[in-house]
Amino acid sequence: MKLAVIRLGHRTERDKRITTHCALVARALGAEQIVLCGEKDDKIVEGVEKVARQWGGKFYITYSPSYRTTLRKFKKQKYRLVHATMYGEPIQQVAKKIRKEKKIAIVVGAEKVPREVYDESDYNVSVTSQPHSEVAALAIILHELQDGRELDKKFPKAKIKITPQTRGKKVSKRN
Amino acid sequence: MKLAVIRLGHRTERDKRITTHCALVARALGAEQIVLCGEKDDKIVEGVEKVARQWGGKFYITYSPSYRTTLRKFKKQKYRLVHATMYGEPIQQVAKKIRKEKKIAIVVGAEKVPREVYDESDYNVSVTSQPHSEVAALAIILHELQDGRELDKKFPKAKIKITPQTRGKKVSKRN
Repeated sequence: MKLAVIRLGHRTERDKRITTHCALVARALGAEQIVLCGEKDDKIVEGVEKVARQWGGKFYITYSPSYRTTLRKFKKQKYRLVHATMYGEPIQQVAKKIRKEKKIAIVVGAEKVPREVYDESDYNVSVTSQPHSEVAALAIILHELQDGRELDKKFPKAKIKITPQTRGKKVSKRN
Repeated sequence: MKLAVIRLGHRTERDKRITTHCALVARALGAEQIVLCGEKDDKIVEGVEKVARQWGGKFYITYSPSYRTTLRKFKKQKYRLVHATMYGEPIQQVAKKIRKEKKIAIVVGAEKVPREVYDESDYNVSVTSQPHSEVAALAIILHELQDGRELDKKFPKAKIKITPQTRGKKVSKRN
């Protein structure tokens, strides 16, 4: 299963940390790329690229000014669009069906998502119908679609690596 | 299982959205309360209380200036402390064991977590050993400890309620 994330409506000032978290969650939990739509933000792109270089694995972050063009492009590449929204169908009810798809782009909105996105998406999916966090929703959707296997994902060619400990920190670094 | 969340080292300006997301994720995904430690921030407390009033269920948010006192208080009340940290043991390996505990407080740090927190915690638990997001880590830990049942949690006496839709939004309100 190929997984991508599309972040809609990024606002440089207000969303910098939330969008960064979305990008890092996408990478850590098994997506191959994230596309940022909305305001241009080189700092986030560079920051995430740096993490990907240091911590290994393959991950791409790109910017696109138009979400419409981006959604269309992914559809042409045969991605199914899974829009994360508190108004959608519960992930626990639709995960099994979505897991059969080969290419999935998870669409994560910021403040106000245009109606068009609901209509263009193949699935509108909720992680509870409660207000909480697009970062958490993205994480749970990635987790459910991969059935937890993403937690064991390897990140080859890492320069920094953590060895899990019951207490304290163990970090190894190489050049 | 009783679940609480303790948010460490909140900084009013820098963390306002991330801490709010942590609180809302705690509520939406089955915790009963969150305690904010660090800088005092009435706005977040009031905002989360408002969500809890409108969206139903029981959820408490409180502030404590001292994380040390807070950890001690929870320990006295027989909570086991589960510290979310990228340096800890993989959640998928320890979830089964932790699920047997009756009272769990998940400790979520901001920037730099004092060594003491690693030592005082009963479990140091990671959601991958990759850098990503405390919001996502909290969500996955809550999800794993409740085995996904939290997604079906009911929120009684809600004034606002969403009915899941394949497309579009369905919201009902009452006074």
